[in-house]
Amino acid sequence: MMIKASKRELGLLRSLRTRKVRRETGLFLVEGLRLCSDLADAGLPIEWVVVDSSRVADPRVAPLLERFTEVGVAVTSAPDYEIQRVSDTVHSQGVVAAAHWADVSLENLCLAPRAVLLALDRVSDPGNVGTVIRTAAWFGASAVLLGENCADLLNPKTVRATMGGLFHLPVIRNVHLPAAIKALKEESFTVNVASADGANDWASWTEKQRALLVLGNEAEGVGRDVRVLADRILAIPKHGKGESLNVAVSAGIFLSAISSA
Amino acid sequence: MMIKASKRELGLLRSLRTRKVRRETGLFLVEGLRLCSDLADAGLPIEWVVVDSSRVADPRVAPLLERFTEVGVAVTSAPDYEIQRVSDTVHSQGVVAAAHWADVSLENLCLAPRAVLLALDRVSDPGNVGTVIRTAAWFGASAVLLGENCADLLNPKTVRATMGGLFHLPVIRNVHLPAAIKALKEESFTVNVASADGANDWASWTEKQRALLVLGNEAEGVGRDVRVLADRILAIPKHGKGESLNVAVSAGIFLSAISSA
Repeated sequence: MMIKASKRELGLLRSLRTRKVRRETGLFLVEGLRLCSDLADAGLPIEWVVVDSSRVADPRVAPLLERFTEVGVAVTSAPDYEIQRVSDTVHSQGVVAAAHWADVSLENLCLAPRAVLLALDRVSDPGNVGTVIRTAAWFGASAVLLGENCADLLNPKTVRATMGGLFHLPVIRNVHLPAAIKALKEESFTVNVASADGANDWASWTEKQRALLVLGNEAEGVGRDVRVLADRILAIPKHGKGESLNVAVSAGIFLSAISSA
Repeated sequence: MMIKASKRELGLLRSLRTRKVRRETGLFLVEGLRLCSDLADAGLPIEWVVVDSSRVADPRVAPLLERFTEVGVAVTSAPDYEIQRVSDTVHSQGVVAAAHWADVSLENLCLAPRAVLLALDRVSDPGNVGTVIRTAAWFGASAVLLGENCADLLNPKTVRATMGGLFHLPVIRNVHLPAAIKALKEESFTVNVASADGANDWASWTEKQRALLVLGNEAEGVGRDVRVLADRILAIPKHGKGESLNVAVSAGIFLSAISSA
């Protein structure tokens, strides 16, 4: 018999949709089978897990609950409608968790002789930030740095769009990009800014040993304070029409090129 | 002095957020300065344009209104709050239009000896469908075919995500993919299905003269009825972790590779 989630727990889970409560508590919401499974493997401190009481024995849910028990996390249950009220999505899959994000600092990153880092400058859409992280994880980037005015990493929309990517590589929040870029230059990183007005200099991009790629705001691109620090401004060649590419699509194209070089 | 939009016009514009009314009227909603400007150039039949009466003389709005007048479209005005009620977005930029979509058929497409076509099989998120079209337009793909169960092209979310791409290349809706694929094979197209379980056969992808790339549903990928028709199942090599890439990111990586080959 599983212990029932308390009203306080359910209320706090619901309130994690707001940035204020996430900041105050240090907790964030993880929803769904896949993401909760990645969370169980991630080693982050998990505050608690709530499961739809009608799905405890569901063959897709039960192994996940066992896994949480293995890693010493208490699982409580709640009726379906309470899970729905917590969940930010239409299909909650009956499992939600609250976890503590463990911030890492740039200084403590262990960077290999060959490493690709991504930095986002004021990317404002949570879906875009999440999809960039998902893409960076797929291509084995060393880390993603989120500049100070990016969408919140711990917004449920961002977390969902990462598809677990935020558990697969270091993501550093609230980075003062100009200072970080100066520090990375001293560690032999070349600084590449993606911009539609840049050069088509793919050869120089793909031959790098240590490379930082900076992608900017959806409408305005990378800010001047960051552009002035660039070793190169790179563009993705346009063969058709349009003003720009989506920021996550651009990240994928750059990372695919350097990964297969 | 500009004529005021009628209550009937404003009511119809608002109702274009629903698929039912779009289907009944054959109209769809175009919002914002950039998209409306692309629409004016696209040559599609435009039913009417409504502008925020306080922005008629705005230096960013006035040239657009002139352009609509040039192409023979009546522009009416309405108070700011009425435009807000029509608009699907937070920032409407004060201009909305209703236009007729002109369907083209696969048979009437004029295909060059070297051509890349994209097809989407049950891609369900409007943002994803729109971003694929935006990406296809950037890379100069010849057309995008939307299978029968894709998100609606004329959903305001899809239209917005295309960033005007739907005006830049032919987009064919409600395509019965197995039949279309058989027809394209007779036109010497090779049929490539993107799937995480595919081969890393980039050389064969980039050397093609006439290539169709099929991308599938966000969770389930390309359906069996389409997979069995594939000449090749292609994967994007994974160098890190994750289950999959976003469908628009995948489209960008494939199109970038074949465009720069």
